[in-house]
Amino acid sequence: MDAKKLFTDTLVGQIRALDQFGTWVNKSNEDLLKEKYVKTKEELKNIPIIADIDEMQTQDIRLIYQAIALAFEKITGVMCSVVMEMSHEGFGRVVVFAEDIVLCEKGFKDAHRFSFRTLEKLEEEGEKLLIKAQEKYKKYKN
Amino acid sequence: MDAKKLFTDTLVGQIRALDQFGTWVNKSNEDLLKEKYVKTKEELKNIPIIADIDEMQTQDIRLIYQAIALAFEKITGVMCSVVMEMSHEGFGRVVVFAEDIVLCEKGFKDAHRFSFRTLEKLEEEGEKLLIKAQEKYKKYKN
Repeated sequence: MDAKKLFTDTLVGQIRALDQFGTWVNKSNEDLLKEKYVKTKEELKNIPIIADIDEMQTQDIRLIYQAIALAFEKITGVMCSVVMEMSHEGFGRVVVFAEDIVLCEKGFKDAHRFSFRTLEKLEEEGEKLLIKAQEKYKKYKN
Repeated sequence: MDAKKLFTDTLVGQIRALDQFGTWVNKSNEDLLKEKYVKTKEELKNIPIIADIDEMQTQDIRLIYQAIALAFEKITGVMCSVVMEMSHEGFGRVVVFAEDIVLCEKGFKDAHRFSFRTLEKLEEEGEKLLIKAQEKYKKYKN
């Protein structure tokens, strides 16, 4: 399975696993991802630069990195961890690591504005992070 | 400077840097560390097993790992990062990393009970973590 599809499937799986009340049952995967992660330039304009971030949005961002971790586990069989901190103001940082190796890490400012312009951009970002994670792990562990 | 002293000095420096209102000016370093991190068995008995953790306590735990990070930087000149997440219930995780290498990581349960029985135990723990951090870094980076 290619990295892009694996990432996207894992992310959708993570989101749907949290759908306790079946709210998203009738939504396609594509619509689900778009609703959560895609904001057009126009939509972004309507979000203030400085604002609080809610827990739901923090969780949505976390899911992306959890999907990277899980997808990495599926490929390599090596267990990963995700640690993320996020302030009320949307400042934060996330790190994904396996054993002693940092696979991926990212800092956030304005995390309440975190989004991708198109669904393709989200998928490409996931693919890139997942491939990079494997390269990093191999670099130190082989 | 030996690792134990470096860790302790760095930790005290971190704590005092946060003392905006001069509350701790007249406290010795030893008393300060004891007040924050040392609880006897008797004292621990009076803390409920299940309870909320406040931000101050979360911050105090974080300072230990920040002190590891800073002390590591002082020794090696390599920049470190600390990412920590902590739930209201005192479940959490912290990771200290430099470049792609995880120097130290720890999970928490009952973090509101986090403490050492004696000041020496705290200092030994810091020393151990700091030495281990250098070993880990060297293992992958040399």
